[in-house]
Amino acid sequence: MGSLDIKSLESSTPMMNMNNNPLDPEEFRKQGYMVIDFLAEYYKSIEKYPVRSQVEAGYLRKKLPVSAPNDPVSMETILADIQTDIVPGLTHWQSPNYFAYFPSSGSTAGLLGETLASGFNVVGFNWISSPASTELESIVMDWLAEMLSLPKSFTFSGGGGGVMMGTTCEAILTTITAARDGLLDKIGRHNINKLVVYGSDQTHCSFFKSAKIAGISPANFRTIKTTKANAFSLRGDSLRATIEADVNAGLIPLFLVATVGTTSTAAVDAVGPLCDVAKEYNMWVHVDAAYAGNGCICPELRHMIDGVEKADSFSFNAHKWFLTTLDCCCLFVKDPNALVRCLSTNPEYLKNKATDTNQVVDYKDWQLTLSRRFRSLKMWMVIRSYGVDFLRNFLRSHVGMAIYFEKMVVKDTRFEIVVPRSFALVCFRLSGSAVLECSGQKFLEEETLNEINTELLESVNSDGKIYMTHSLVDGIFMIRFAVGATLTEIHHVTYAWKVVQEHATALLARLSMIAC
Amino acid sequence: MGSLDIKSLESSTPMMNMNNNPLDPEEFRKQGYMVIDFLAEYYKSIEKYPVRSQVEAGYLRKKLPVSAPNDPVSMETILADIQTDIVPGLTHWQSPNYFAYFPSSGSTAGLLGETLASGFNVVGFNWISSPASTELESIVMDWLAEMLSLPKSFTFSGGGGGVMMGTTCEAILTTITAARDGLLDKIGRHNINKLVVYGSDQTHCSFFKSAKIAGISPANFRTIKTTKANAFSLRGDSLRATIEADVNAGLIPLFLVATVGTTSTAAVDAVGPLCDVAKEYNMWVHVDAAYAGNGCICPELRHMIDGVEKADSFSFNAHKWFLTTLDCCCLFVKDPNALVRCLSTNPEYLKNKATDTNQVVDYKDWQLTLSRRFRSLKMWMVIRSYGVDFLRNFLRSHVGMAIYFEKMVVKDTRFEIVVPRSFALVCFRLSGSAVLECSGQKFLEEETLNEINTELLESVNSDGKIYMTHSLVDGIFMIRFAVGATLTEIHHVTYAWKVVQEHATALLARLSMIAC
Repeated sequence: MGSLDIKSLESSTPMMNMNNNPLDPEEFRKQGYMVIDFLAEYYKSIEKYPVRSQVEAGYLRKKLPVSAPNDPVSMETILADIQTDIVPGLTHWQSPNYFAYFPSSGSTAGLLGETLASGFNVVGFNWISSPASTELESIVMDWLAEMLSLPKSFTFSGGGGGVMMGTTCEAILTTITAARDGLLDKIGRHNINKLVVYGSDQTHCSFFKSAKIAGISPANFRTIKTTKANAFSLRGDSLRATIEADVNAGLIPLFLVATVGTTSTAAVDAVGPLCDVAKEYNMWVHVDAAYAGNGCICPELRHMIDGVEKADSFSFNAHKWFLTTLDCCCLFVKDPNALVRCLSTNPEYLKNKATDTNQVVDYKDWQLTLSRRFRSLKMWMVIRSYGVDFLRNFLRSHVGMAIYFEKMVVKDTRFEIVVPRSFALVCFRLSGSAVLECSGQKFLEEETLNEINTELLESVNSDGKIYMTHSLVDGIFMIRFAVGATLTEIHHVTYAWKVVQEHATALLARLSMIAC
Repeated sequence: MGSLDIKSLESSTPMMNMNNNPLDPEEFRKQGYMVIDFLAEYYKSIEKYPVRSQVEAGYLRKKLPVSAPNDPVSMETILADIQTDIVPGLTHWQSPNYFAYFPSSGSTAGLLGETLASGFNVVGFNWISSPASTELESIVMDWLAEMLSLPKSFTFSGGGGGVMMGTTCEAILTTITAARDGLLDKIGRHNINKLVVYGSDQTHCSFFKSAKIAGISPANFRTIKTTKANAFSLRGDSLRATIEADVNAGLIPLFLVATVGTTSTAAVDAVGPLCDVAKEYNMWVHVDAAYAGNGCICPELRHMIDGVEKADSFSFNAHKWFLTTLDCCCLFVKDPNALVRCLSTNPEYLKNKATDTNQVVDYKDWQLTLSRRFRSLKMWMVIRSYGVDFLRNFLRSHVGMAIYFEKMVVKDTRFEIVVPRSFALVCFRLSGSAVLECSGQKFLEEETLNEINTELLESVNSDGKIYMTHSLVDGIFMIRFAVGATLTEIHHVTYAWKVVQEHATALLARLSMIAC
C-alpha cells in the first residue's frame, strides 16, 4: 500500500476538528491556573464556611438539570457553579476548625503529587506498564518502614515489602484472603465455615465487613469485649480464652486484627502479647494502625506499635495524618508470596518479558484490583517537600494541641475526660455532676447524660463554627476532639474550646430553666 | 477556666513555627502553577519520549537514596528530579502514539476535576461527611444512565441507582458478594462450596479473582469456551449446557459475567440471551463493559449492550475511554438494597441524624470500603466541559481511526485482520502466507507464526515510537491496536502503520536471509 493510497484513505476518513483537543497543553495551562487559583482562594477563605455542611438532603437535585448538557460550558462557569452549588454541600475536612472523625490532612506537596500522578495517568498494574510507578512505590515503602522502625522483615531487602492501596479495608481484605487460602490449601476448602476471625469490640467495623466479603461465616466473627479499666485495649488473656473456646468447639482460628489507635478512643491493643497468643494457633495477625501509625514515625510514640515485629502485616492510612491526599493506605507484609500465591493472575494480554524474568514486582498480584494509581508519587513528594524532621514535628504539634485541649477540659469542672488522651484524640463530655448541679436533681441516668451530651454536640455542630463527632463506648456517649487538619493552629483549638464552653453554658442554662 | 488561664496555657504549649504551613495558600498557588506548567510542557513534548519505558528493572534504586531525607527540598528540585528520574520510567499512556492495552484517556477537565476533588479532600463515606459528594454522584450516575439509554430501573427514580468505584474488579467483587449472601441467606451458609460462577474463556481474569476473594471455590469457576466462528462471543446455548451439567451434579448457579468488549478482542457476549438463560436459574447477571461501555453513549453503538435491561448490574470504566482520569468505575444496580443488606455497617461513630431519617444515600454501604473519593466531581466536569455531543463525536473519531487503520492493514497483503474490528480495537498479524513467501517454505506451524508476530511486536515496542500489546486467542497470537489516547489524531495512526510496516519489512527481510 503506497503513501498516496494512505493519504487518500486518511483524507476520506471522517474526523472531528481537533483544534479543541481535550488535552491541548495551552488550554490545560490556562484552565490549570484557574483551578489552582480557585483552590488557593478556597484555603484562604475556608474559615468562613460552616465546617459541617448545613444543606438539607436532596439540595443538589433541586439545583442541577435532570439531564447532561449537550453543549460545552467554560471552566469559568464550572468554577462559579462549584462555588455556588458544590461548596455549600461540602463538609470542610481541610478547615482548621475540623476536629471530627479522624483527619484527612492535605498538603501542597500531597495535592500536587496527586495532580502529577493524574496528569501522567499511568495504570501501573505490572512493572512494564510503568516501571517508575512500581519502583518508586517499593522504594518509598522501604523509606516508610525505616521511618517507622519496622523490622527489616517488612522491607524488600528483608524478604517482605510494602504496597500502597486505597484504604485499610482493602489491606485487610487482601491479607485475610491470603491467610484464608493459605490455610484452606492445607486443610481443604470444606473447612471454610469453621474459620474464625478475631478483633475486639473496638475493632473498626471494616474488619468484620472484610471478613464477610471474604466468605467467612458471620457466626465466626469474635468481637472480644474490652473494658474501660484497660482503656479499651485488647489483651492477650481475653484473646486466649476466646480462641480456646473456639478450638474446643472444633473451629479453626484464622486471623486477628490488633488495632493501634481505635476509631472510638484511639485505644491501643497489646500487639506483642496478642501476637504471642495468636502465633500459638498459627493465625495471621494484622496490625491496623490506620490513624495512629502515622504518629509512630515519632520515636517517642513508636512504642505504641511495639510487638509489630511478631505480626504478619501492618498498615496505616497516610491519607489520614501524613499530609497525603485521599487515598493512600500503606500495607507492609512479611511474606509477599502469600499474597501473590492467592491473588496472582497471568492472562496472556498482560504477559511480558520483564514479568517472565521474575526480576520485577507486579503489584496487581499484591492487591484486589488490577488497575492501580501512581500513589507513591505524592508520598515521595510529601516526604521530600517537608523532610522527615518537619513531618515528625508537625505530628507532634497536633499531639501538643490535643494535650492543650485536654488541659482546658480538665480545668473546667463541668467537663470530664472519659478516657485518657491517646495520640491527638481527646474524648470528653459534660459531666454528670455539672448536670445534677444545674438541674438540682439528686440522680441522673447514664442515658440522660448521654442525651444531654448528644444535644451539646449537635448544638455545636449545627452552629458550624467547629465540627466534632462522637462515640459511644461501654454505654458512655463521648465527644471526640481529633486534632490533625493541616491548617489547624493553636488559636483554633482555643477557639474551639470557647465554642464548646459557650454551647455548654447555654445548654446548662436551658436545663436549669426546665428544672425551675 | 478564665481567658487569662487559657492564654497562659496556650503560650506555654510547645508549638512549631507555622509560617511554613503545608497548606499555605500563596505557597500552594506558587507551586501549583509550577506543576501545571510542568504538565503542560509534558503534554507538549510527550511525543519525544519512547512510549513504552525503556528502563531496566531496578533502575530507580540506583538513583534514589536508601533513606528518606530529613531536610526539605524545593518544588523546583523535585520537578527536576521527576524529569530526570521518573519520566524515563514512565510508559506514556497519554502519548498519542500509545495503542496498547486499552486507553486511559485523560483530559483537562478530568485532571482538574481530580485536582479539585483532592483539594477539597473530603471523605464521603456517608451523606453527612460531605453531602455534595454523595448527591453529585447520584445525579451524575443518573445522567450517565440516560446517556447510555439504560432502563429506568438502573436509576434512582426507578428504584435502582449508580455508584462510582475505583475499578471493575471492585464492582464485580461487590456484586458477587451481594449475590452470594442473598442466596446463602436463603439456602444456608453450608452451601457456599456449591456455588458456581460463569464467564467465558474471554472473560477478564479479574472476574475469577473476585470470585476467589469472595470465597467461591475455584473448582466452581466456569470458563465457557468461545469460538473464532462466533467472534469469541459467549452464547446462551453454551451457557445453558454448562449450567445444566452443574445443576445435575448438585451444584448451585450463582453469578454470570457477560462481557461487552473483551480485553483480548473487544468481543461482545450475547447479553440478552445470556440473561434469559441465567434468569431461569435465578442467577445474578453482571454486564462488564469496562472498555466498550463508554462507546455505548453513541446511539449507533448502543445495540452492543442490548439486553442489559434484563441484567442485575452493569459497569464501565470511565477512566478508560471517557476523558476521566484513573480511577472511576461506574456501577449501576437495579436493587441497591441487595448491596446494602450485605455491605452495610453502622458503627456508633458514624451514626448521624441524616442517616437515621433514611432520606439519604450512604455510599459506604454500596461498596467494599469505607473511605471513598469525590470521583463524581471530575466526571461532572468532563461532561459539562465537553458536552454530550462532543463526547460522542470524540469516541466516534477513535472508532473512525480504528476503521482507517483496519483498512490499511487489509490493503497490505502481508497482514491479516484476525477478528473483525470491534469498537476502536483492531487485532491483526503478519500473515502465514507472507512468511511462507519470503521464507520459500511450504508449510508453517501456527506456533512459528506466533513467534514471528511476537518478534514483530517486540521489535516495534523496543523502538519506542509507538506501543501496542498482544493477545493470544484460540492459539493465535495477535497484535492489538487500540485507539483511544486523547491526543491521538489521524496522522498518528498513519505514522503507527508506517512504523509497523517498516518493522515488518525488516523482519521479513531477515527471515528471507535466513532462508537463503
